[in-house]
Amino acid sequence: MRTYLECVPCIIEQTIKTARDLTQDWEKKEILVQKVLETLSNISYNQSPPYLGREAHRVIRKILDNPDPYLKMKKEFNRVGKELFPSLQKRANHSKDRFADAVKLAIAGNIIDFGPQHHFELMRTIDKVLLAKAAIDHTGSLRDDIESASTILYLGDNAGETFFDKILIEKMPPKEIYYGVRGSPVINDATSEDAYWAELDKVTKIISNGSDAPGTILEDCSGEFKDIFARSDLVIAKGHGNYETLNEIKGKKFYFLLMVKCETIAKDVGCSVGDFVVKKIQNAVQP
Amino acid sequence: MRTYLECVPCIIEQTIKTARDLTQDWEKKEILVQKVLETLSNISYNQSPPYLGREAHRVIRKILDNPDPYLKMKKEFNRVGKELFPSLQKRANHSKDRFADAVKLAIAGNIIDFGPQHHFELMRTIDKVLLAKAAIDHTGSLRDDIESASTILYLGDNAGETFFDKILIEKMPPKEIYYGVRGSPVINDATSEDAYWAELDKVTKIISNGSDAPGTILEDCSGEFKDIFARSDLVIAKGHGNYETLNEIKGKKFYFLLMVKCETIAKDVGCSVGDFVVKKIQNAVQP
Repeated sequence: MRTYLECVPCIIEQTIKTARDLTQDWEKKEILVQKVLETLSNISYNQSPPYLGREAHRVIRKILDNPDPYLKMKKEFNRVGKELFPSLQKRANHSKDRFADAVKLAIAGNIIDFGPQHHFELMRTIDKVLLAKAAIDHTGSLRDDIESASTILYLGDNAGETFFDKILIEKMPPKEIYYGVRGSPVINDATSEDAYWAELDKVTKIISNGSDAPGTILEDCSGEFKDIFARSDLVIAKGHGNYETLNEIKGKKFYFLLMVKCETIAKDVGCSVGDFVVKKIQNAVQP
Repeated sequence: MRTYLECVPCIIEQTIKTARDLTQDWEKKEILVQKVLETLSNISYNQSPPYLGREAHRVIRKILDNPDPYLKMKKEFNRVGKELFPSLQKRANHSKDRFADAVKLAIAGNIIDFGPQHHFELMRTIDKVLLAKAAIDHTGSLRDDIESASTILYLGDNAGETFFDKILIEKMPPKEIYYGVRGSPVINDATSEDAYWAELDKVTKIISNGSDAPGTILEDCSGEFKDIFARSDLVIAKGHGNYETLNEIKGKKFYFLLMVKCETIAKDVGCSVGDFVVKKIQNAVQP
């Protein structure tokens, strides 16, 4: 997906939020915003939003002189995910349609970055999602495609959400499953460390994509990751960033599991803000 | 008032709205946003938001090759203002406290730029404002200060809103009143042309400030305007832009008439978004 004009102020707002959260130094905040503006003024919006995000967050890390500004937040999300995990498992195991509810739980996990919430609130939101209907629902087809696949690549999104992904992966039949994560810290996105913390190595092979983009920019990924991507029968991709970087890739079968958080994505996907979505996309390879 | 970090994405959103409204050419839209980002990356945020706005709108006019991109919108607002004027006058004349209600009407006129509204809706909003209580209300003091003033400078804001200002000015005792407008087109702000269209020359002396900022940056204004400013006993200033550029000026008696449209101004003024405000500010001159 290309960058829509509306994505630009959104990335700048993220920058400002980071500036506010991570430094008290007014001059540093101002330089941070100015440098991000300068950076975003030099990139073609034919690139995807995570491409712009990658550049912006490189600037942020450099100016804050901090290789992982969101580390504390990620630790908190990991802690919350770990604490919730047993009750999530219980829900998934006491369900009429365990697979469909596990898909919903995986998507519900995407709300973990909606700011600090009490467990009680988080659980209430999860309950709501379990009762709601997906705006676009290709869960049946996903189930069939998992059944017939040999190799599956599951692309994670945020730290802590990893535990919700594990719920879904545990409901899949035994296959060769790779759990893809970002190659190095960017925002609160899950890296290998977060995936191991959720013990995803017990149910998948954890694979770093080698990139610091908040999405999956294939040209940016390691050879090893690209090989696994190429030979996977199926890619399950979580969250906005993965959708924005992969939705136009040709010749691959994708299932995008999304909580729709902004108008731009809603328009692109064809639904409303607040919807959740299980959307299959398989673009034809042009001859 | 300095530029808060939150003002930056807001100015960029305005730019995007302009780009959308005024050109179909995608490449031009992209260049417009990129050039505004570049411009805003080179200005200190110790400047006021209208300083940044001035620079952004200079870029917009240049790239669109259009000296007055909002001309059509201003004409529409002027038309609406003119049509409403007789009924506004009637309301002001059939009121228990004519002056206080004229102040409210002048502030209500500030909603004219909230996008195209039907007259009916506009009148309903005006009715609401007339019934509501100002969050900060120095109307009594304003009345007294007008009474004792010899020369008054009234600073307008948007085209069309000029008619609402006229209602208030008609309720003032006969004094030397100047109606200040922007020196040349910027956004939908009133210039001399709009003031004459509202026949404000019949009740005031219309004075251009000589600047293309969406506010009143004194260093930027003409000598003539600065003279009038200096010898005015009282400045009545409408809207965000005038507040942002004048609220810290020392040694002058200001009354800011505002409809509070964003969190940043709300915080600075000390009220909530949606409030309306009649706020006296007179900063002491430091010895």
